[in-house]
Amino acid sequence: MKWRVFILGTLLKTTLEKITGLDQEAMNLARERLDGLLKPPGSLGKLEEIAVRLAGIYGQPRPPLASKAIVMMAADNGVYQEGFNGYSQEITKAVAELAGAGLIGVAVLARHAGARLVVVDVGIKDEVEGQHIIKKKIRYGTDNITCGPAMSRSEAEQAIEVGIDVTNKLIHEGINIIGTGEVGICNTTTSAAVLAVLSGADPELVVGKGTGADEKAYQAKLQAVKNALVVNRPDPTDPIDVVAKVGGLDIAALTGCYLAAAANKKPVVIDGFIAGTAALVAAKINPLVKEYMIPSHCSAEKGAQVVLQALNMEPMLYMNMRLGEGTGAALAFNLIDAAVKIINEMGSFADLA
Amino acid sequence: MKWRVFILGTLLKTTLEKITGLDQEAMNLARERLDGLLKPPGSLGKLEEIAVRLAGIYGQPRPPLASKAIVMMAADNGVYQEGFNGYSQEITKAVAELAGAGLIGVAVLARHAGARLVVVDVGIKDEVEGQHIIKKKIRYGTDNITCGPAMSRSEAEQAIEVGIDVTNKLIHEGINIIGTGEVGICNTTTSAAVLAVLSGADPELVVGKGTGADEKAYQAKLQAVKNALVVNRPDPTDPIDVVAKVGGLDIAALTGCYLAAAANKKPVVIDGFIAGTAALVAAKINPLVKEYMIPSHCSAEKGAQVVLQALNMEPMLYMNMRLGEGTGAALAFNLIDAAVKIINEMGSFADLA
Repeated sequence: MKWRVFILGTLLKTTLEKITGLDQEAMNLARERLDGLLKPPGSLGKLEEIAVRLAGIYGQPRPPLASKAIVMMAADNGVYQEGFNGYSQEITKAVAELAGAGLIGVAVLARHAGARLVVVDVGIKDEVEGQHIIKKKIRYGTDNITCGPAMSRSEAEQAIEVGIDVTNKLIHEGINIIGTGEVGICNTTTSAAVLAVLSGADPELVVGKGTGADEKAYQAKLQAVKNALVVNRPDPTDPIDVVAKVGGLDIAALTGCYLAAAANKKPVVIDGFIAGTAALVAAKINPLVKEYMIPSHCSAEKGAQVVLQALNMEPMLYMNMRLGEGTGAALAFNLIDAAVKIINEMGSFADLA
Repeated sequence: MKWRVFILGTLLKTTLEKITGLDQEAMNLARERLDGLLKPPGSLGKLEEIAVRLAGIYGQPRPPLASKAIVMMAADNGVYQEGFNGYSQEITKAVAELAGAGLIGVAVLARHAGARLVVVDVGIKDEVEGQHIIKKKIRYGTDNITCGPAMSRSEAEQAIEVGIDVTNKLIHEGINIIGTGEVGICNTTTSAAVLAVLSGADPELVVGKGTGADEKAYQAKLQAVKNALVVNRPDPTDPIDVVAKVGGLDIAALTGCYLAAAANKKPVVIDGFIAGTAALVAAKINPLVKEYMIPSHCSAEKGAQVVLQALNMEPMLYMNMRLGEGTGAALAFNLIDAAVKIINEMGSFADLA
């Protein structure tokens, strides 16, 4: 990918400048310790890989148990006007608001994981209520991508900076692992469009049934994605262009979360299809960001496997889940804690000698 | 499978008589509640399936958070004499003893899951030390299956009864979910032999590299399994005959754990390859036992997928782990708790009305 020169917002620019690779020395020491533990080398599989990765991210051979947060980006999508989605568009707002009472799926699973749930309005189409919601609305939903761009390039960059800003603040407050999540009616449609452009996959391979489309609705959704690509002609070598033209404010904001986590040398857990698409956007902006990402589950949404292949990542969980919100990322936190405890608490052959 | 009449031990016999199916009414009510929660129906995938299953097992539409234990059955295998295993046979005993100090993998992960770790000597080849070990030795290791049966039928039944007895006692003490685990040098060999007979799969498909065999050792291991089948001719319609002739005391004892969990209407979590083979033995004794089983991870050991196919089960975790001990089962406990919290703590559309 050629690096294209654009005038970036200051926060985005400084964030990108801070991103470097992992601490190889810490990773080597972690690997050495794991190989000396009371088990055949490598026999704890991904737990060992995660422990090594965390060592490299934090720059500590014995990585710490993390203080956790799930960031749920909420935004509406103009493509809802196409009429194929059977759910009310009010659900985006309702889910964001109900998160405060702890009633939604990710609220239950974040609590179960001991994680703070952070809800951000980055573009819900109406005003939202609730002290718990961080109000960072860039605009009242996007435009219909079948007719033109979802938003301007400047708005996409502002949304990315919302993700950066929220993540920076959380890390400043002591959070040291971020899980990604989202809510936004029609965001499997925008994710499919972004993924088709960035991965080169046919729309047929990345458009799925979302929260429950029937065959007729599915065909209309597929056609909407195809139309959006024809109408907008996003530039596959320019990920921000892709998000601005056929993506959404939630995807853009999550892209910022990944960038900020990497810039701050903190791990970031990828949720499902939409959060995975945002991860791919971030990885296309700077491939080093991938080293800070930990995949969680393989969503039941059709394009989820395409995202994971494009990222070259293997998830830990196959739960057949497709709720989004950050529910898969929340489940992965316990496994990441397990990896930390393995490297810190298991006995070694050296201890016995 | 024809039911074959043998004179069973009293405990085994009464346990088998107690096994019945799940509470369908509780399952229907659980399904109804899940469909009314604030999410598209079915969108939490396996978490929903587990919640329904637990409702049916406990006979409660709103299943409780469980008090957990991992049972690690420890036993030695005479086939070690064939010389293909590069590890010292003393490891079986060492792992059982080190469990008391919390130093082994499953000790760390059981603690992480809030589960009690229960270590049972059902047939280690030497005397073991440690207050934490339940001493139920049937014999000092089995005989070499390439020369004759591992043990007598009576010894296999006694080992099954050890599993039943230990499980019954745990449940009596308030444990209401059991995770399975084991340790025993060469028990991937005996498991492969048992699995080949019960599933009809070629030995090539079920013999794996275990804790780390090279190609030469692998070929010797494969040959040992083939020889064991020729020498012993276990009866595939008689699962206890198969375990007695080509299995091990750990597999037999774990079979008892599954039977006792089902008889007591408590869920039992399958760990990896060896525990999965024991699950298949239990399911062949009475197919209803399967309804009480929850699979955890897909082990990296070659035959793990054959076991899961034979059980017709899809695991939740793909961690590339192959340590055994109960490490995969321990990781699954957190997911099972998550399922319980989803059904009990999420808001419903009815709540909002």
